[in-house]
Amino acid sequence: MSLLKSWVDSANSAATPFPLNNLPYGVFSTAKVDGHCGVAIGDMILDVTALEEAGVISIDEIPVFDLPMWNEFMDLGAEVWAEFRTSLQELLGEGAPEELRKTLKAYLVAQADATMHLPFAVSEYTDFYAGKNHAFNVGTMFRGPENALPPNWLHIPIGYNGRASSVVVSGTDVRRPWGQLKAPDAEMPSFAPCKRFDLELEMGAIVGQPSEGPITVGEADQNIFGYVLLNDWSARDIQAWEYQPLGPFQAKATATTISPWIVTAAALEPFRTSTPAREKELLPYLAEPKPGLYDIELEVTLAPEGKAETTITRTNYSQMYYSAAQQLAHHTTSGCAMTVGDLLGSGTISGPTKPERGSLLELSWGGKEPLTLDTGDERSFLADGDTLTLKGAAKGDGYQIGFGDCAGTVLPALDDPYKR
Amino acid sequence: MSLLKSWVDSANSAATPFPLNNLPYGVFSTAKVDGHCGVAIGDMILDVTALEEAGVISIDEIPVFDLPMWNEFMDLGAEVWAEFRTSLQELLGEGAPEELRKTLKAYLVAQADATMHLPFAVSEYTDFYAGKNHAFNVGTMFRGPENALPPNWLHIPIGYNGRASSVVVSGTDVRRPWGQLKAPDAEMPSFAPCKRFDLELEMGAIVGQPSEGPITVGEADQNIFGYVLLNDWSARDIQAWEYQPLGPFQAKATATTISPWIVTAAALEPFRTSTPAREKELLPYLAEPKPGLYDIELEVTLAPEGKAETTITRTNYSQMYYSAAQQLAHHTTSGCAMTVGDLLGSGTISGPTKPERGSLLELSWGGKEPLTLDTGDERSFLADGDTLTLKGAAKGDGYQIGFGDCAGTVLPALDDPYKR
Repeated sequence: MSLLKSWVDSANSAATPFPLNNLPYGVFSTAKVDGHCGVAIGDMILDVTALEEAGVISIDEIPVFDLPMWNEFMDLGAEVWAEFRTSLQELLGEGAPEELRKTLKAYLVAQADATMHLPFAVSEYTDFYAGKNHAFNVGTMFRGPENALPPNWLHIPIGYNGRASSVVVSGTDVRRPWGQLKAPDAEMPSFAPCKRFDLELEMGAIVGQPSEGPITVGEADQNIFGYVLLNDWSARDIQAWEYQPLGPFQAKATATTISPWIVTAAALEPFRTSTPAREKELLPYLAEPKPGLYDIELEVTLAPEGKAETTITRTNYSQMYYSAAQQLAHHTTSGCAMTVGDLLGSGTISGPTKPERGSLLELSWGGKEPLTLDTGDERSFLADGDTLTLKGAAKGDGYQIGFGDCAGTVLPALDDPYKR
Repeated sequence: MSLLKSWVDSANSAATPFPLNNLPYGVFSTAKVDGHCGVAIGDMILDVTALEEAGVISIDEIPVFDLPMWNEFMDLGAEVWAEFRTSLQELLGEGAPEELRKTLKAYLVAQADATMHLPFAVSEYTDFYAGKNHAFNVGTMFRGPENALPPNWLHIPIGYNGRASSVVVSGTDVRRPWGQLKAPDAEMPSFAPCKRFDLELEMGAIVGQPSEGPITVGEADQNIFGYVLLNDWSARDIQAWEYQPLGPFQAKATATTISPWIVTAAALEPFRTSTPAREKELLPYLAEPKPGLYDIELEVTLAPEGKAETTITRTNYSQMYYSAAQQLAHHTTSGCAMTVGDLLGSGTISGPTKPERGSLLELSWGGKEPLTLDTGDERSFLADGDTLTLKGAAKGDGYQIGFGDCAGTVLPALDDPYKR
């Protein structure tokens, strides 16, 4: 696969995250429109809500882009997804007739003039723990390398239900939380601002079709509409005290930042890659009918307030041990109904070496080995004012499928969370 | 407080769960109407959707009962809740003028002719673990009595996020799930139907007002709109293998049954009672400004297929260690946004003695001491065809505030969950 040419010039560069091959879906506002559905092309956005209102485009003669979310579109199913993508590639491709281009130009908005919103209404949010290097690193810190992986880890894509209301779009500031903490040597817990605030570099898979009973990995793969970058902000000190025996709760509920563009599974198709060889054979219900991961290069930068950013990690989504399709299939085994707009966090993505680790917990080895940034600043965990940015792209031949930044700045904790 | 008299005769019995003092909110269908909001009074339902459509009642001149859920009403806030309750008590009270009664009679539907639906759209579902006897029993089985309670248990209302899509209304059949299991002595896990399917007797608190940052226990108490009975169906064998380290996931995702009527906090107000004396002083953010529990008598019956029911447990909501208000306040500490329609499960409610235990896991002590039912049948866990019914009522002077049954029948597992 190579670059597909568009008549939107900025879409034809090898550097743009949004060539005609990509066409990710978002929701935006400008000075003129409020909460429209749009498609990124080069440095522009095609306003599909306005196009639908004007009758230039139409899907099944029903309003699909009348709400500021892509849920209605997802609801229509894989056939419509494919047809719409094909028609967008015709509309925006270099072969589009001059008359059509002229019409469409009126519906192109500069990304620089737009504010992005959550691209879909998050129905429910599940977060997994499916990166083996991450699970091994965290397990080693807490239990030693011999017992690092829990006994079930090689058999189950371990996950827990997160909080959908925590999901925010890139650019949303994140307030350092208060919480109940207890130092290992303290007699009693205290209620205090989090001191070990961290990121988790993840991908989020978006469920685009509902299911009622158990579904296979193959069916699950077809139900996944697309992907976003995801930062699962984590309060490590709150987590350490609260998580036994029922798992993380408030430690993960402050915020979950996602990138603003849904990159479709269709756009990522050329970049499929398999999950790794297995130490233990998977049960048949988790077997992969085709490669379920994608070769997506990922990095995270950290910029202290008013200073330049440092890349603190570089890794790849292909490092995961379980694919989103395997996770979704496992999610349905109990008969659990899945809904359009469900978001599945991959789990922290860490590569095998130190500069590939996807959390500060791992990068600073629990705070014992602080990181030195290019600015000279040291970090074990996040400081107030830090801006974290997740970046990701699948790299093709002379083009890339980019995600757009997934960024957030840490605000200081409130002086008194109960003062209003 | 004593019985408030209604002109609906069946509401004036000491035995009715739905006297004028109660007035719980539900959603029903009959042969004539589909998904209307209704208020239970005696053995009848007042159809408030039809009343609003006809212009007989009106709240703020906007449609509030046009959707088959009470979320829109909850959204309006505590002042409207109180005003509406007062006006219902006037409309249905014995002092209502004859002309009005005649009008309203046309909007009364027999409960016997109605099918009940979920009374509200569940935004997100959180399940707690706040019954001390339950936590102690389960902890003793797994870790011995010395280490029964986790170290954080006396300080935190431990909870985990559940799956909102699992919530179904009373009367919905529940299919025994398949899942990944591993016997302690087995080399490898298997994928098989659950053999240790169980109930958990709980109350559910419904969040009726949104919040953005941390809120106090007093504020949380005011944000709780009402309560339902809740059965947190649990697959113990799936849970045992999956729950470390991130908590229960598929073991709790098959179904969560709630009773069909939202009993308002206002109706329960006379039955407030305090949480118990504390072994460890609570942190100030969890202190109770007023009694946060309610004196609600609870029982569970089990009826094998085609046989009579046996009461397998009797206990009281006042056995909880943390109130729903304390749980909700804790839920917001991280800044977690709460939404109208969030459902908080109390955790399993077990009293101190054996016949007061709220799960078969406890009643049969992990399967070691099977229960003998009145029919002579033995149960360690649930058998296919078993119907479980949770019942609850706050008992006043010559009246009761009842919840309506919370029932479900266990269907056999599918032969092959992937056969379609």
